[in-house]
Amino acid sequence: MTEPAVMPDPADPRLTRRVAGVDQDGRAVEATIVVERPLTLFLNGQEIVTMMTIGDHPDWLAVGYLLNQNMLRADDVVTAIDHDDDTETVVVRTEARTDFEAKLRKKTLTSGCAQGTAFGDVMEKFATVELPHAARLRTSWLYRLMRAINTAPSLYLEAGAIHGCALCREDEVLAYMEDVGRHNAIDKIAGWMFLRNVPPGDKIFYTTGRLTSEMVIKCVQMGIPILVSRSGFTAWGVELARQAGLTLIGRARGGRFIVLSGDERIIRDADARIVAEEDRRARRKGAGDDG
Amino acid sequence: MTEPAVMPDPADPRLTRRVAGVDQDGRAVEATIVVERPLTLFLNGQEIVTMMTIGDHPDWLAVGYLLNQNMLRADDVVTAIDHDDDTETVVVRTEARTDFEAKLRKKTLTSGCAQGTAFGDVMEKFATVELPHAARLRTSWLYRLMRAINTAPSLYLEAGAIHGCALCREDEVLAYMEDVGRHNAIDKIAGWMFLRNVPPGDKIFYTTGRLTSEMVIKCVQMGIPILVSRSGFTAWGVELARQAGLTLIGRARGGRFIVLSGDERIIRDADARIVAEEDRRARRKGAGDDG
Repeated sequence: MTEPAVMPDPADPRLTRRVAGVDQDGRAVEATIVVERPLTLFLNGQEIVTMMTIGDHPDWLAVGYLLNQNMLRADDVVTAIDHDDDTETVVVRTEARTDFEAKLRKKTLTSGCAQGTAFGDVMEKFATVELPHAARLRTSWLYRLMRAINTAPSLYLEAGAIHGCALCREDEVLAYMEDVGRHNAIDKIAGWMFLRNVPPGDKIFYTTGRLTSEMVIKCVQMGIPILVSRSGFTAWGVELARQAGLTLIGRARGGRFIVLSGDERIIRDADARIVAEEDRRARRKGAGDDG
Repeated sequence: MTEPAVMPDPADPRLTRRVAGVDQDGRAVEATIVVERPLTLFLNGQEIVTMMTIGDHPDWLAVGYLLNQNMLRADDVVTAIDHDDDTETVVVRTEARTDFEAKLRKKTLTSGCAQGTAFGDVMEKFATVELPHAARLRTSWLYRLMRAINTAPSLYLEAGAIHGCALCREDEVLAYMEDVGRHNAIDKIAGWMFLRNVPPGDKIFYTTGRLTSEMVIKCVQMGIPILVSRSGFTAWGVELARQAGLTLIGRARGGRFIVLSGDERIIRDADARIVAEEDRRARRKGAGDDG
């Protein structure tokens, strides 16, 4: 794709605020903190949910949330997305009437940053997804991607206390999005992909957060064959990744990583020791807050 | 209180699993990962929710969840908590019939690890809470608490990818609990406090996670006047803390911290520079995974 990458905009004054505080020695200090706003989502006539978000991409968040909750199907045609800043609402309109109330019945709270998913239904869809076997990840790409993500200007480096996700192809970051909840960040990427018809099969998904069941489920639902995190694993996340044939890479820091599923997609064409020092430097910049 | 502190039990074989993986150089490695299990919660006859949890304290998690969702009131009498490992269910029985369906109407997804709360109702209760002004936090206590929490044997040190919360009084850790979601960890502490009639007014609450609106709301609901995190702030979390008069301390690492609300409760009786080196060592042990 020729359009420029979508990157965080820490300079956007709506996204952060300077607040007065006091430090350990009693000195007056100012802290930069992330601003979160309510956003109430409607699908056609139906109020769905009120989310807390940094509010940078309400349209992508709305569509991605509906997709990842299976309230919107891949073949649904979105005719309009009306966002109103004053009323803090976003309305997604579709050509055909959507049917999802049944999905709202059984709610399961997945671990980590989860808002509960229409679980039975999600797992049905999960079982049907066939991830492309031909997809590959070169470790040289991985190391370049992580350096790019860790050193890019971001709300994370500016204020911390935020999650980031990045959609990548080979060694290129296509979209790097942040939000107060990891589920929002991944939903914004899902919405962006849907509205631009971005194919998932050759993509690599990076998250700053843990590789929980929810992250694995959403990545598989989105059709992305490779999921990477600098953070750790949960057992159910690993089980689901192995069921789906997802390549699952965790604890990716300083040139090191662990693969717990789908190692056959990885081509080791870089020497971890050589990149370790640069990555360690980049990581120090990116590290600090624990989401 | 004379009973021993409740601490994590990383040696419990039900809580972690060793899984085979491959490292950056293609070497076979084993990783220790946290096990998460579904737990379906019933209040009397009514199925409430299915949670993913490490499953170490289903009784405390069940009661704490109901309390923090305002489905159980402080004056409700719990007559039984029946946990069944095979069916992965826990049933909380109360003397009086509970009424909460109305609470389930409006759901807001608070930021961070949130499962949606009965929001209007929670905010009504939030506005009525009066936190004790007399409560104090000595920085000497804070530094000792953080060293104790960061160096205690835990699933975090064993496997990472987990959140921790600790309830403390002065420089003593009373209960340190971990779970795959931060909301589970705080709910388990809430349930433990309720079932033991632990008064909240002289307590200090520590979390490994961000100081989101959800953490502030729950801490205030629980009546705890001081909330500390090594992690960062969100704007709505700070606003709510200031409204409630909660002492809010963030970015507490290596002897440093920032207070964005309720500084008047803090007594600075320790030199940050002197403890910085020990805390930095302890922090290195505790650091690594970013929840």
